[in-house]
Amino acid sequence: MKIILIGGHGTIGKTIAAALAPRHEVIIAGRNSGDIRVDITSEESVEKMFRELKTVDACICTAGTGYYGDFAAMRQQHMLPGIQGKLMGQVNLVLIGKDYLAEGGSFTLTSGVASQLPAKNGTCVAMINGAVNSFVLGASQELKRDQRINVVSPGLVEDSGERYGALFPGYNLVPMQRVVNAYLLSVEGAVNGRIIEAHF
Amino acid sequence: MKIILIGGHGTIGKTIAAALAPRHEVIIAGRNSGDIRVDITSEESVEKMFRELKTVDACICTAGTGYYGDFAAMRQQHMLPGIQGKLMGQVNLVLIGKDYLAEGGSFTLTSGVASQLPAKNGTCVAMINGAVNSFVLGASQELKRDQRINVVSPGLVEDSGERYGALFPGYNLVPMQRVVNAYLLSVEGAVNGRIIEAHF
Repeated sequence: MKIILIGGHGTIGKTIAAALAPRHEVIIAGRNSGDIRVDITSEESVEKMFRELKTVDACICTAGTGYYGDFAAMRQQHMLPGIQGKLMGQVNLVLIGKDYLAEGGSFTLTSGVASQLPAKNGTCVAMINGAVNSFVLGASQELKRDQRINVVSPGLVEDSGERYGALFPGYNLVPMQRVVNAYLLSVEGAVNGRIIEAHF
Repeated sequence: MKIILIGGHGTIGKTIAAALAPRHEVIIAGRNSGDIRVDITSEESVEKMFRELKTVDACICTAGTGYYGDFAAMRQQHMLPGIQGKLMGQVNLVLIGKDYLAEGGSFTLTSGVASQLPAKNGTCVAMINGAVNSFVLGASQELKRDQRINVVSPGLVEDSGERYGALFPGYNLVPMQRVVNAYLLSVEGAVNGRIIEAHF
């Protein structure tokens, strides 16, 4: 398969890339690095990326974060970058990319456990993840030409435990292989319209 | 209780207002009508409303809709009004209103069954509803002074069946009293951080 992976230099992204590379052509896209540059908040940039790729069999996105911070002082302005990036950026990939994706191709987006069990200070991220999950439920009903779409909802991966664990008390650290498998299930498997949980 | 109800002239809103009026002071707010005018997409307008109200014991929002339309041609621009209104408008009410809401007061937002079972053409609405649900899970953990927050997730109400039923094949029509009860449970009850489903 020819696979475009947006966010391939992140903690999860680079492990997925390594897992897929022996069997597939993996093209890494990122805002500031990668084989191809893309700003997923820009429809023009997304369109340009897919046009350059011509056709792809799978599109995986592990890019995008959301605001963590004091709820009492949080306002729209803090939330907008995450909405434009992790939410609408992933939406852009699907709405635009579906016209370039091969017949039978797949999208795999990323949300996170916060949609169900938000950490303290994580209400914005919870909101974004909940939005991505429900978007995928809808989109999976609409895609044509046997295209599929799923979303992986990871918890806190082991590799991030040392760096972020203190912010997420009680979160079980998820083995990276379990998270990678969730993506493989979507890309190489046959599931459609699923929120694939890799947490707890 | 002194209750502010945003969207009190809609199908659901006016029934809630009628149910609460015998026992409470219900103030209706709307963009173009009501006792007080508010544009929930504007932080300034929301702040102004709460400042004028001084304090309130309950804030209910039944305002806001989202885009329904052909998925193949949907783009960000179609989705933005719903994101700014039903999603970030309701978020604004909470982030700003919490400083005005009385001790022990409650927020009751509105999402909808689409977050779980999107209708055809309803992916945007599904996304928005999923976002509101997860926002409420997070916010309920953060509010201070014994404030509560819940979200009612209505299905297609009986009163809208004739007008919209054809767009939602297989949706059970929900008796209006059941939907109203969901709001009463949030406002007059003690639940917190709940997605109160009034569907199926």
